[in-house]
Amino acid sequence: MTTRLTAEYLLPDLTEEERERAERVESVLPTLREAALEADACGEFPPGHVKTLAEAGLLGLVVPVEYGGLGGGLRDLAATTYALGTACGSTALAYFFHCSASSRGLLPLAAIDAGVYEDHEVEVVRAFAEKVLFAMGRDKRLLANFASEAVKASTANVLINTTARRTEGGWLLNGEKSFGCLSGTADHYLVTVRREDVEGIDGLSLALVARDSEGIRPRARWNGLGMRASDNHGLVMEDCFVADADALTVPGAFTRATQMSRGSWVGNQVAIAAIYAGIARGAWEYAFGRTMSATFADTGKPIASSPMHQVLVGNGEEALAEAHLWLRRQIDLEASDPPILPKPEVVASWKLAKGAICERSFSVAVDALKMCGTSGALMDNIIGRAVRDTSMGLVQAFPAERGRLDMAKMLVEKESWAGLTTSDTFARTPARAGARREEG
Amino acid sequence: MTTRLTAEYLLPDLTEEERERAERVESVLPTLREAALEADACGEFPPGHVKTLAEAGLLGLVVPVEYGGLGGGLRDLAATTYALGTACGSTALAYFFHCSASSRGLLPLAAIDAGVYEDHEVEVVRAFAEKVLFAMGRDKRLLANFASEAVKASTANVLINTTARRTEGGWLLNGEKSFGCLSGTADHYLVTVRREDVEGIDGLSLALVARDSEGIRPRARWNGLGMRASDNHGLVMEDCFVADADALTVPGAFTRATQMSRGSWVGNQVAIAAIYAGIARGAWEYAFGRTMSATFADTGKPIASSPMHQVLVGNGEEALAEAHLWLRRQIDLEASDPPILPKPEVVASWKLAKGAICERSFSVAVDALKMCGTSGALMDNIIGRAVRDTSMGLVQAFPAERGRLDMAKMLVEKESWAGLTTSDTFARTPARAGARREEG
Amino acid sequence: MTTRLTAEYLLPDLTEEERERAERVESVLPTLREAALEADACGEFPPGHVKTLAEAGLLGLVVPVEYGGLGGGLRDLAATTYALGTACGSTALAYFFHCSASSRGLLPLAAIDAGVYEDHEVEVVRAFAEKVLFAMGRDKRLLANFASEAVKASTANVLINTTARRTEGGWLLNGEKSFGCLSGTADHYLVTVRREDVEGIDGLSLALVARDSEGIRPRARWNGLGMRASDNHGLVMEDCFVADADALTVPGAFTRATQMSRGSWVGNQVAIAAIYAGIARGAWEYAFGRTMSATFADTGKPIASSPMHQVLVGNGEEALAEAHLWLRRQIDLEASDPPILPKPEVVASWKLAKGAICERSFSVAVDALKMCGTSGALMDNIIGRAVRDTSMGLVQAFPAERGRLDMAKMLVEKESWAGLTTSDTFARTPARAGARREEG
Amino acid sequence: MTTRLTAEYLLPDLTEEERERAERVESVLPTLREAALEADACGEFPPGHVKTLAEAGLLGLVVPVEYGGLGGGLRDLAATTYALGTACGSTALAYFFHCSASSRGLLPLAAIDAGVYEDHEVEVVRAFAEKVLFAMGRDKRLLANFASEAVKASTANVLINTTARRTEGGWLLNGEKSFGCLSGTADHYLVTVRREDVEGIDGLSLALVARDSEGIRPRARWNGLGMRASDNHGLVMEDCFVADADALTVPGAFTRATQMSRGSWVGNQVAIAAIYAGIARGAWEYAFGRTMSATFADTGKPIASSPMHQVLVGNGEEALAEAHLWLRRQIDLEASDPPILPKPEVVASWKLAKGAICERSFSVAVDALKMCGTSGALMDNIIGRAVRDTSMGLVQAFPAERGRLDMAKMLVEKESWAGLTTSDTFARTPARAGARREEG
Repeated sequence: MTTRLTAEYLLPDLTEEERERAERVESVLPTLREAALEADACGEFPPGHVKTLAEAGLLGLVVPVEYGGLGGGLRDLAATTYALGTACGSTALAYFFHCSASSRGLLPLAAIDAGVYEDHEVEVVRAFAEKVLFAMGRDKRLLANFASEAVKASTANVLINTTARRTEGGWLLNGEKSFGCLSGTADHYLVTVRREDVEGIDGLSLALVARDSEGIRPRARWNGLGMRASDNHGLVMEDCFVADADALTVPGAFTRATQMSRGSWVGNQVAIAAIYAGIARGAWEYAFGRTMSATFADTGKPIASSPMHQVLVGNGEEALAEAHLWLRRQIDLEASDPPILPKPEVVASWKLAKGAICERSFSVAVDALKMCGTSGALMDNIIGRAVRDTSMGLVQAFPAERGRLDMAKMLVEKESWAGLTTSDTFARTPARAGARREEG
Repeated sequence: MTTRLTAEYLLPDLTEEERERAERVESVLPTLREAALEADACGEFPPGHVKTLAEAGLLGLVVPVEYGGLGGGLRDLAATTYALGTACGSTALAYFFHCSASSRGLLPLAAIDAGVYEDHEVEVVRAFAEKVLFAMGRDKRLLANFASEAVKASTANVLINTTARRTEGGWLLNGEKSFGCLSGTADHYLVTVRREDVEGIDGLSLALVARDSEGIRPRARWNGLGMRASDNHGLVMEDCFVADADALTVPGAFTRATQMSRGSWVGNQVAIAAIYAGIARGAWEYAFGRTMSATFADTGKPIASSPMHQVLVGNGEEALAEAHLWLRRQIDLEASDPPILPKPEVVASWKLAKGAICERSFSVAVDALKMCGTSGALMDNIIGRAVRDTSMGLVQAFPAERGRLDMAKMLVEKESWAGLTTSDTFARTPARAGARREEG
Repeated sequence: MTTRLTAEYLLPDLTEEERERAERVESVLPTLREAALEADACGEFPPGHVKTLAEAGLLGLVVPVEYGGLGGGLRDLAATTYALGTACGSTALAYFFHCSASSRGLLPLAAIDAGVYEDHEVEVVRAFAEKVLFAMGRDKRLLANFASEAVKASTANVLINTTARRTEGGWLLNGEKSFGCLSGTADHYLVTVRREDVEGIDGLSLALVARDSEGIRPRARWNGLGMRASDNHGLVMEDCFVADADALTVPGAFTRATQMSRGSWVGNQVAIAAIYAGIARGAWEYAFGRTMSATFADTGKPIASSPMHQVLVGNGEEALAEAHLWLRRQIDLEASDPPILPKPEVVASWKLAKGAICERSFSVAVDALKMCGTSGALMDNIIGRAVRDTSMGLVQAFPAERGRLDMAKMLVEKESWAGLTTSDTFARTPARAGARREEG
Repeated sequence: MTTRLTAEYLLPDLTEEERERAERVESVLPTLREAALEADACGEFPPGHVKTLAEAGLLGLVVPVEYGGLGGGLRDLAATTYALGTACGSTALAYFFHCSASSRGLLPLAAIDAGVYEDHEVEVVRAFAEKVLFAMGRDKRLLANFASEAVKASTANVLINTTARRTEGGWLLNGEKSFGCLSGTADHYLVTVRREDVEGIDGLSLALVARDSEGIRPRARWNGLGMRASDNHGLVMEDCFVADADALTVPGAFTRATQMSRGSWVGNQVAIAAIYAGIARGAWEYAFGRTMSATFADTGKPIASSPMHQVLVGNGEEALAEAHLWLRRQIDLEASDPPILPKPEVVASWKLAKGAICERSFSVAVDALKMCGTSGALMDNIIGRAVRDTSMGLVQAFPAERGRLDMAKMLVEKESWAGLTTSDTFARTPARAGARREEG
């Protein structure tokens, strides 16, 4: 019987190839775990981790073999961020922001195959896409994907105000990115920008900028409540030059590529949610182990057997199981081939799943806190870190309260597509028709 | 594109054979739906339903083909009770109590194959098992399985006080059964009894009694809050004679057979939980449809688009989705071949799943009530019936609060087996070991 | 030491006069309790209850002494509906709809004192007001107040479509009322109508119509899920004549009177919420008593001492205590002299309180159901009735989800008045100013 | 119109004397608020605060006037810790641990008045009690009360293992205290110890030890998740000498004194819970103000008006209001004269109240986090500090889950006293008797 891998707690049905990749992940966990406490206290991504991840081949985890990667997919990515999360949430998050750069290579390539580009566009799109993928795979470079900005609109999660202005041989970038990880650490930043000279969403463009380029620097240090060691400070660009060859500025090229995504936006978001579940699992293991080995002074029984602890164990196990159920379901929806559901339903499911996973993960961490009592409520142990790290999951992207409202709006406004489809969430024509009959 | 079946909302991945059986189920739903209101009001199982179910071949749904059945398994059973639940919860419950009689045939046969009986026992065990299965399959008889009794012990859910006393050519049964369905309706009662002359659990025996036998009759009418049309009154036996050929009284024969079950007790319980989810789905469809077609007098927009309704839609969809997630997981655990997890973990998972499914189903029904407001809060429409029917799910077998405590107890007391296994609930050694290292 | 009255569980600080009135209430409880089961089953208000209430003097509970009443106020009303609720929720609700008719006398009289009417209006307003109060007090007539109608607007809870058209010597009423109690039972209906010849809200008028008048009759029987014995069927008016002397049709007279209310609309709504808490308390007492007196067959300990029951007892007691806390707070806000808070904040507090009280009451009833298990889950015992009755509280007026949203809207849109006031909910200037400083 | 004080958000009905004392509290809030961020970051009680509190006269807040104090009671204490909590939770907690030392003076004095001591004991008890009170009042010394230790028993929250061994002229103390505040800061430690030569609970004794005494020192630094600036490190005593005059070692003297407490143990615990509500209020004000002043880039409307924020505002306001309701109720129960309820019920109420207040406070802080999103989720702003500080409230003393179980146990085991009393939680005889009748 083979030893169980951490990733298999999330996905018990790994294929042989997936399991091989998961073993690489397992091998780095002790190193990450050992560095986690100090990294959180300093609020800095441990520089040695780049080498650790690169040597295990993990920088190319989701890069196709032909570009020098390991050929993994979304299942690998989520299983990996989950496993890393049990050891160090910050590392898992930073690693995700590296991996998600691959979408800027994979989606355009898929779009080329799908024929969404004009002939004259194909070459330049492919060149940029392959540059990204070779960097991650063959060249083992650490990338960092920067999209989010701070401005908010009532109708969208993200507005892009960073501009690309034409200059000789390339573009000048100006703007500010919030919340991307690995600022100051990555070899290359992959930034989403807006061409000043193109109206609307077709202006969205991509640029690959080396860390030590002039005119680009990390924003002021962001002293986050959790996920503190992910170098999550954002970027500032001031007339930062990027050469034509390092940018994808064909009007609409990126926008069209995102249509190839199986999930919302560029996909993969479920692998962020997996981090929080991993953190929760780590904290819960710690709390359960601690209260099983500590005993009452009078009876000698484990603390975990007290009536209160029994209630907490029941609550914690249920919440953890639910985080896993939602994760598996969303991974299935976004990774299965052929697709189980049409894309609008996959997106709608994500609106619920994201909040459910993160709320449950936070609740597990809080239960772990209660299991261990005041003596376990430290800033610098697994419990305290997990409470802080998972609290970030509540607000990252969108809170559960917003996800539910977004989904409800989709459902009410798009009922036309609902009857055609198959999810437990959306398809409802037959039973409803019956219901109406009964009423009348 | 084929029409979607109700069963496919629970199990979207039906095999071709399963889908064929599900079509039989789909065909009876209109009849059931039409009769549901009146049946609930009277509190009586509609007598015509026996014929409806028999003609659709459904009395043999989970009986092997060689005994004249359709050869379905647990997936079929749960998908069926779920689908029936969307039309009439009471019928679904009564139908379950018929189907669960098959366990008294299938488990002993499996036990024979597994070699748990002595040679001299095999023949009599097989004869009884086949009698049960032929009755359900080939002969299309309606059976009703009676186990539960009213006495409670602090350490068990069920005590059997009904006795079998030796008499010439057979046994005299005395006792009272609570809560079994189809009392007064089934062709044969399949009752669990205790041999007076055998100590302990080995005395557990089975008897197949025709409805019109002397000395057996329904208990006084039970005026339940919900599930009212399932003829759920229980049985009274007073010196009721059963011939040797209609009883399985070999000491320990039944007890040993239950070890073959994949879930708790005789298995299949998840198919009861599926009923409540089905009821919830039916009510939710109704409420959503009603508030989409009704509009505000001033704006003409659907009622469902109001801010409050948006909140309710989000809550209801989330709860319904979670009921489905838990159901699918438990069905997978009990039906997959080879087993995903060892039996103790499957049982432990059920301890959480049962409560989670039933709580969510009730919560969906209550949300549906809120969607429709006072004008929908009737005794005799889908909303009112669903609130009452799903409230029975909260207490049936065990409430969620007890399930969580039972699971916690198993976890604390049985940690020895935890480390060997694979569930997200139970297996935890590697991560915990790590956790301890970090602490030290 | 005096015996504790049921009303004192809600308001432990009754004055001597209040206690005297509460003793009258206590005296009718056994009669109500005895009739409750049958009344619920039939769905009819027990006709004998009119005499019971009248003889105890309770028809004039909230009518000033000078009009032949007992001189009670909102505290009396809420304490009474709460106490009645422990015995029979339906009777409590019907009684409330009688008592709330007094607002149509008291508010106009208060408005006269406050000088809101022109001199020429005073006489006719006073005459109508006194007619209402003398009927309830001196003449011990049973009134029933009908306001709600079925049409919904996105911006208001209630639209009045019932019209009054001028005819010789009076008015012809046409329209339909939903959900008022005592239809078919009250001596007089007090209906809110709209003068056809007056634009807007100033057209709101009142009419006092004898039950046996021509052109007025109960709507079709409403088969409610709960509160079934309150004769809650609504009214239909077809050219129903009402003489000038029995109507208050002065333009704006009623609208201006409602400004005198301490709470939302005509006030007193908290006394409806008190009913649901009373019902919950009754069910909880029953469930606790039952599980304390029933014992486990093996240990002889009360069922209530099992770990699961201990969890349920904790949950139920907490929810019941919270229902009481919210009730007392809202009663204080609406009854205290001088006012604790300005009216907008009292209304805002009600938006939260209504939902909180009713949700907790329902949750207590559901906990009581779980305490008693399947054998207690009957249609026709206290448990089943309480689950159904309290479910009506979830939707009556507005669900908790809507109350919270309404309150949030008030808070965001009216921040101007927030800083001036004193509630824990609303006044917040000093601390917030500080918060901003700290941030800067 | 007078300006509203922070304390009045909790207790709107301050007497004139209470208001005067509350003004002293209000005057120190800006200083505390200004220092809070830095204090939390360093994890150290700001040394200047001792002077600030002393100069405002607050060290004697709950010390009778005859001992040089301000003569405040429990209402003052809770209103003060609540107000301090809105500015700096750590300071509020440290201040509480100073004030709670007064119980070691007040309870013995009350016990003397109640005649619980023998004549020969009175003088020595009074001398010690007055020494404590004069130190706090007249002499403006900062005291710190140390009771808790780390060992756990299944049947009690606190075991005292610190011993006092007889030596010439006094006692030698040995042991370790966990979680007391102001270690290293207070002028005197007031420690609870156990006389080695007296069996059982009668050995409990008190000792007043100057900070710079030999053999006493703070434990190793405790790096708490929250409440970090309260010098909450605990104490280590190794043969620490205390003179007879500075100890209360009369067998049973302290134990008998605790019987005078109105609440559990030495009372006053509700004033700790008030801190968490104060912190929550501070965070909520901040979040609401921030999202009211920030606006959407496209519509110009406040962020707080988005549908999601409206849901959060409703949730947060409800939770905050409930924390206030529970606090006021418990303060009333422990402070009202004459008592509203007998002591066992006051204690039982506390079992629910503590958890309810702290859970709601934490939930408000988490809602505030969601209101402000990722950009507000900092380690070093009000949001992050409030989440961390209020998380300590979940585990301090006992989690809500334990409180509910403790209360349930009291209720089931002590039903004999339940029928005699008056709380909404406990007294239930009349209605239950009725319930039984109805069933029969």
